[in-house]
Amino acid sequence: MKFAVVGTGVIGSGWITRMLAHGHEVVATDPSEGAYERMLTQVKQNWPYAESLGLAENASLQNLTFTDNLAEAVKDADHIQENVPEIESLKDKVLTEIDFYAKPDATIGSSTSGIMPSELQQNLTHPERFIVAHPFHPVYILPLVEIVAGKSTSEATTIAAERIYESIGMDVLHVRHEIEGHIADRLMEALWREALHIVNDGIATTEEVDKAFTHAAGLRYAQYGPFMTFHLAGGEGGMRHMLKQFGPALKKPWTKLEAPELTQSLYDDVVAGCEATSQGNTMAELDMKRNEFLVKVKQLAQEYWPEDTASMKKGQQTVHEYDN
Amino acid sequence: MKFAVVGTGVIGSGWITRMLAHGHEVVATDPSEGAYERMLTQVKQNWPYAESLGLAENASLQNLTFTDNLAEAVKDADHIQENVPEIESLKDKVLTEIDFYAKPDATIGSSTSGIMPSELQQNLTHPERFIVAHPFHPVYILPLVEIVAGKSTSEATTIAAERIYESIGMDVLHVRHEIEGHIADRLMEALWREALHIVNDGIATTEEVDKAFTHAAGLRYAQYGPFMTFHLAGGEGGMRHMLKQFGPALKKPWTKLEAPELTQSLYDDVVAGCEATSQGNTMAELDMKRNEFLVKVKQLAQEYWPEDTASMKKGQQTVHEYDN
Repeated sequence: MKFAVVGTGVIGSGWITRMLAHGHEVVATDPSEGAYERMLTQVKQNWPYAESLGLAENASLQNLTFTDNLAEAVKDADHIQENVPEIESLKDKVLTEIDFYAKPDATIGSSTSGIMPSELQQNLTHPERFIVAHPFHPVYILPLVEIVAGKSTSEATTIAAERIYESIGMDVLHVRHEIEGHIADRLMEALWREALHIVNDGIATTEEVDKAFTHAAGLRYAQYGPFMTFHLAGGEGGMRHMLKQFGPALKKPWTKLEAPELTQSLYDDVVAGCEATSQGNTMAELDMKRNEFLVKVKQLAQEYWPEDTASMKKGQQTVHEYDN
Repeated sequence: MKFAVVGTGVIGSGWITRMLAHGHEVVATDPSEGAYERMLTQVKQNWPYAESLGLAENASLQNLTFTDNLAEAVKDADHIQENVPEIESLKDKVLTEIDFYAKPDATIGSSTSGIMPSELQQNLTHPERFIVAHPFHPVYILPLVEIVAGKSTSEATTIAAERIYESIGMDVLHVRHEIEGHIADRLMEALWREALHIVNDGIATTEEVDKAFTHAAGLRYAQYGPFMTFHLAGGEGGMRHMLKQFGPALKKPWTKLEAPELTQSLYDDVVAGCEATSQGNTMAELDMKRNEFLVKVKQLAQEYWPEDTASMKKGQQTVHEYDN
């Protein structure tokens, strides 16, 4: 398979590394001064990590070519990945060019983290072969890609995109409804905003907020997400028990985010979802797997955590003025 | 050191395991029917994980005794850890009893996840030796404990508490300002509420939300928290660059949580905080450490992630009715 990558910053270089590591040919393009050298430096820096995750048999940096001519870069590609800066007018312009020069049966993916696909595809001549495919930094290590079809995206493109991203070792999350920020960034943004509020209100420093996360919940989230974590905290009763016990906490001001009403329908969906994910594992089995994982990830994380700074240990780091 | 643990459910049993594993004597108490057997079963189940994290030389299950008499349990203890259900009137009653029977120089820690220490200590005869010490499940593996002093807590108690929890292998986060939910649970609650909104609005299933987290951000959060993650995403410019580039996204509706105003003062605090945590490491060095960690944690997590269910792969799992 022949890939083209348009825009070779951090995300573009990450895609290039991943595509090369899976044995594909890549043509990269970026009009900015010095783009080629910067891209090459990054891809070479990324390569050892891709290597330690395992290279395809025919993986090679030799399969990479660069041109500053967009038409040249995309004309023979089977799939084109766009990663220009997150400015809608710029994305529109570049996508229109890609659409014009690409083969009629090529698929086009955009790495946009926030813009909805229906907006980006509206000026294309072949909007049906366009899809959002949002990766996570570092793209050559993290496996998730969110794919989001726009109103004009064809079913065939969605199916092809799933296959394409799986062919480069990714775990595809098919987002069924267009929404700004897709799914993962909405979760991260909620966390980020609450973290900013905590610092802004003078409750804690950035270092303390980070530690509050990495030394407890952050270890759990590498394995189970917010729902399964809560499911496992419920003992034998799982999510069913937790929603009854902690549902009332949704009324408390524990964050600046207002909670949804815990209706019977929401309750049912959440309970059924956790039970489906459990796939017949008993709570005891889920607990055991969590514990085995946590012991290992904790040992691993301990080697890599930043040291507490002396000021933090003494509780003396300057905090934002405490305002309530 | 002699510990007493009052309330022997999941959290209490977790504390007992951790204290025993670090070579201490523990007297446990809980008035409920069958509490002793349930606690013993749990501690025995927890023990192998404590073992694999490393036991103290004199660690032994033989150092555990149980009594259903609270006075008996606490009278000789140097430190008492309270873990009764999160009902303020019940905590008040039990803490008053502990305070009455404990040695005058014993310290008392409460595992409350949400109640502020000044509220819990107001009816005690010796409120100065009371402190909130909030752990995370599973207590025998996760190292974080948030300690929060109330208005009447003495400086000596805070210092003693730090030493006590460090002596059982914990990483102490000293929360400087009382606030409902302390720090970590506020972050988790923001995430949890946004996750509920996403399911409630019909955007995604619980399984998809969890995957959006575990297969990308969740892997990063085991090492770096929300601030350092953002700092590392900024390339050479770090947080300084990120706040300029993504500050405007705070105005976007990417979550239901309203963001704080990004004032110069907040900007300065966040940038300075990340630079302090970096402790002189260059962005390239931080990047390298992140990559080394991520490669390992990803390989580890892959062994333990729940399989995608067939319905999820096909994008057919029932979603909550989509309402916008």
